[in-house]
Amino acid sequence: MKKLVLLVSTVAALTAGAVAAQADETNPAIVHRQAIYKIVSGHMQSLKAGLLLKGPVDNLAWNAEGIVDAFKHMGAAYPEGSDKGETKAKANIWTEQAKFQEAGKKAFGAAVTLAEATKAGDQAKSVDAFKALGGACKACHEDFRKD
Amino acid sequence: MKKLVLLVSTVAALTAGAVAAQADETNPAIVHRQAIYKIVSGHMQSLKAGLLLKGPVDNLAWNAEGIVDAFKHMGAAYPEGSDKGETKAKANIWTEQAKFQEAGKKAFGAAVTLAEATKAGDQAKSVDAFKALGGACKACHEDFRKD
Repeated sequence: MKKLVLLVSTVAALTAGAVAAQADETNPAIVHRQAIYKIVSGHMQSLKAGLLLKGPVDNLAWNAEGIVDAFKHMGAAYPEGSDKGETKAKANIWTEQAKFQEAGKKAFGAAVTLAEATKAGDQAKSVDAFKALGGACKACHEDFRKD
Repeated sequence: MKKLVLLVSTVAALTAGAVAAQADETNPAIVHRQAIYKIVSGHMQSLKAGLLLKGPVDNLAWNAEGIVDAFKHMGAAYPEGSDKGETKAKANIWTEQAKFQEAGKKAFGAAVTLAEATKAGDQAKSVDAFKALGGACKACHEDFRKD
């Protein structure tokens, strides 16, 4: 039993350690790019509440614009050397740059389409565009982000 | 040894389960308010990269404005019944509403001060305001958010 308790503590400590390590990352490029993705993810989650869960929908255009804006503020987020540290970035981001940039452009284009649909107040088009953007995020994660 | 392996798997499954449950929450008020906090957290993280980690600082005003804007889009985020579900909201949000609203106002005020400092391009004032806002977040979490 003692061993089991010890093991649970160890697993818990490792999990807590991983979270703490992430908060301790000091490469500003890594911290900033993860921040941008967190902003995008937050806006996607609010859009989900409005578009899929029938929550208040007066935020839709603000959220979609927020995603477009966040991508615009990404900057030079993957400088050399930023493959090391608390990052899930796969090495092929740097070895397959054209493919990576193409995936980024796809997501950006999908966000622009979503912004147009939400600004027009077109619910059906907004749902479609939301799903398309979600698909673009997922495709890029599968190719370029570690699990 | 088999028991140990089983236990590790159980702990891992429980962790994964908690994450999945959160993604499965269907109360739009809960999903939306957590999204707003995620947006705020993302902007804070990008500010950290610029203000504390010497990263690019051309995003500071955008991030600070993004926090003010996010708070403005919170809406009626704590309707009755939204204390149930995948939420870390403590019960006293509903029983101590005046105190909770006061904490919210404090955070909003700190965000406005930060927006002014970043817009003015005052680095020292921005760092102070960033820390003050972080303190307001933390104080509210301690009183009203479960660990």
